[in-house]
Amino acid sequence: MTEIDILISEVGPRDGLQSIQTIMPTAAKKAWVAAEAAAGVQEIEVGSFVPPKLLPQMADTAEIVTYARTIPGLTVAALVPNLKGAENAIRAGAHKISLPLSVSETHSKANLRKTHQQVLDEVRAIVALLNSLPPDQRPGFEGSLSTAFGCTLEGPVPATKVTEMARKLIEAGCDEVGLSDTTGMANPRQLQHLIRLVRSEVGADKLTGVHLHNTRGLGLANILAALDEGITTVDSSLGGLGGCPYAPGASGNIVTEDLAFMLDSMGIRTGVDLEKLIAGRNIVTGALPDEPMYGFTPDAGLPKGYTPGGWGIDS
Amino acid sequence: MTEIDILISEVGPRDGLQSIQTIMPTAAKKAWVAAEAAAGVQEIEVGSFVPPKLLPQMADTAEIVTYARTIPGLTVAALVPNLKGAENAIRAGAHKISLPLSVSETHSKANLRKTHQQVLDEVRAIVALLNSLPPDQRPGFEGSLSTAFGCTLEGPVPATKVTEMARKLIEAGCDEVGLSDTTGMANPRQLQHLIRLVRSEVGADKLTGVHLHNTRGLGLANILAALDEGITTVDSSLGGLGGCPYAPGASGNIVTEDLAFMLDSMGIRTGVDLEKLIAGRNIVTGALPDEPMYGFTPDAGLPKGYTPGGWGIDS
Repeated sequence: MTEIDILISEVGPRDGLQSIQTIMPTAAKKAWVAAEAAAGVQEIEVGSFVPPKLLPQMADTAEIVTYARTIPGLTVAALVPNLKGAENAIRAGAHKISLPLSVSETHSKANLRKTHQQVLDEVRAIVALLNSLPPDQRPGFEGSLSTAFGCTLEGPVPATKVTEMARKLIEAGCDEVGLSDTTGMANPRQLQHLIRLVRSEVGADKLTGVHLHNTRGLGLANILAALDEGITTVDSSLGGLGGCPYAPGASGNIVTEDLAFMLDSMGIRTGVDLEKLIAGRNIVTGALPDEPMYGFTPDAGLPKGYTPGGWGIDS
Repeated sequence: MTEIDILISEVGPRDGLQSIQTIMPTAAKKAWVAAEAAAGVQEIEVGSFVPPKLLPQMADTAEIVTYARTIPGLTVAALVPNLKGAENAIRAGAHKISLPLSVSETHSKANLRKTHQQVLDEVRAIVALLNSLPPDQRPGFEGSLSTAFGCTLEGPVPATKVTEMARKLIEAGCDEVGLSDTTGMANPRQLQHLIRLVRSEVGADKLTGVHLHNTRGLGLANILAALDEGITTVDSSLGGLGGCPYAPGASGNIVTEDLAFMLDSMGIRTGVDLEKLIAGRNIVTGALPDEPMYGFTPDAGLPKGYTPGGWGIDS
C-alpha cells in the first residue's frame, strides 16, 4: 500500500448512484470500482444495503461488495440503514459499515421514518451482532451525523444537538462518528467549531472523517478547514455525481478529481494518480450518458508542467 | 460606511466584460455598478484604460469611472496598461489604478508585448506623474503580479522570480503589489507560501490583496488560505463572469455571490447584502442574455432559516 497523509473515500457508487434514476449495470459498477482502485483510491463506499424496492439502483450491492473485496488493499465500505442491512453487509464481507442518523429529528422522521430513539435501537442491535462476530470478521462501524450543519426542513441545527447525538452513537457502541453536511450548508468556521465540539465530547480518535457537499460552492474550502483541524478521511464522488445538482455547474457532492488535485498540488499524499483518476470518468459517462459530470480540473486539465506531489511550494 | 473585516473588490465590469465578445451598453454598466454598490460592495474595478481598438468593450471606461465617482462611499478602481492609460484614469477621477506585470516574461511578451524592463519603465513614468499631483488627487497605485502561481506558456513560475518582481515594483514606486492567479493554478499551500515570501521581501503592508481564479475549482479554498495569512482584499466577479469558462460549470473568476456567502456565513463582515447582491445578477443577464452566469449559491439559495452575519457558530 502507498503511504498516504489523507484518505479520499470515494462514495460515488453509493451516494452518486442512489441519487439518480438510471440504474448502472453491475459490470459498469465493477469497472468503476476497479478503475478507481487502480488509480490509487484506497477506500470506496460501493453501495447501500437497502431494500431493492426502495432503491433498485442498489439491488446488486452484495455482489459489488464481494467483487470489491477481491481488489488487494482496497477498503470496502457500505451504507446500512438498519440491522437487516448490517446482516447483509457482514455476509457480503464489507470492511466498514456506516449508518446515518439525522441530527434533525424532523429530517430523520421524513427520510428514514424513524425517531432518534428508533435509530439508536438499530445501532445497539447492530453492535450486539458485531460483538458476536470473531474479531477478524468484524467490520468497523461508523455512525454518520447527517444534517449536522443545517437542515432543509428545520433550518439551523444546534451544535449542542450534534454533540448529544455523537455521544449517544458512541455510547450505543459505534466505533466512530462522522460529520455529514447533507444539505450543503456548512462553512469553514462551522466545520472548525463542530469538529472541536464533537471531539471534546467523544474524543479526537472517534471523529476522523467528514462527508461534505458542494451545494453552495464551499466544498473544498470546507475540506481545507477540516484538514486544519486534523481530519484525515474525506468523502467525495467522481464527477460530483449525486447530491442535488442545480444548473449550471452546481453539484451536491465534492468532486473527487478537484479534491485529489487540490491535495496533490499541496503536497499532501493521497495515493491517487490524477491522470488515471480523470481517465476513469469515461466508465461513468459511458454507462450513464445522460448524467452530467462535474468538476473543474477535468475540464481545465492539469497545469502546464505539472508534476505529481506538489506545485509551487519548493522554490 | 459599514465597518467591514474583508474588502470584496468586484472586478466583473473590467475582468468579466473584457473577456467576452459582446459589448455591454454603458447604461447597463452603470446600473450594474450602482446595484452592487447598493448591495454594499465597497470597491469596484469598473473598467480598463486600454485603446478602444484593442478592447472596444472598455471604450466607455472614462464615463463609467466618472459616474461611479458619484456613488457615495464607493472606491472606484481601474486597470491601466501604461502611462497613457494612467493619464486617462487620473483625468476621469479613479481612486485606485493597477497595472499588471506578468512574472512570466514569456507571458508578458506574448500578452502585453513588453519585457519586464519595459513594464517597469511604464511604472516609473506613472509614479513620476502621480508624484506631480496634489496629494488629494493622487490615486493609489498597485502593481499586479500576474501569472504568479504558474503560467500557461512557461509552466511553473519560481517563487524567487515573484519576490524579485514584487521588490522591483515597490522600488519603482508602486504603493502596493497584488498576487494574481491569472491561470487558475494556485493551491492553498502555495498561497500561504508566496504571501509569506513576498511580505518578507516588501513588507506586510505592501501586500494586502489577491486576485484568484476558480479555473480548477480551488478558488474559495485559496481565498480561505489567503485570509488565514492576513490578506484583507479579495477580488471576485459577479456570476464568475470572465476568465476562461469550460462547460459545465467551470469559470475563470471567483464568483462574488459564493464568496460573499462564505464570508458572511463565517461571521466575517463584508458589508454585502446577499439577497441584494444576488438580485443584481438580473442586470447582467438582462444585458448579456447569451453569457453563462456561474455560482452555486444563487442556484441553491440561502440555507433555510439563514440570517446574515454567521451560520452555525453560536451554539
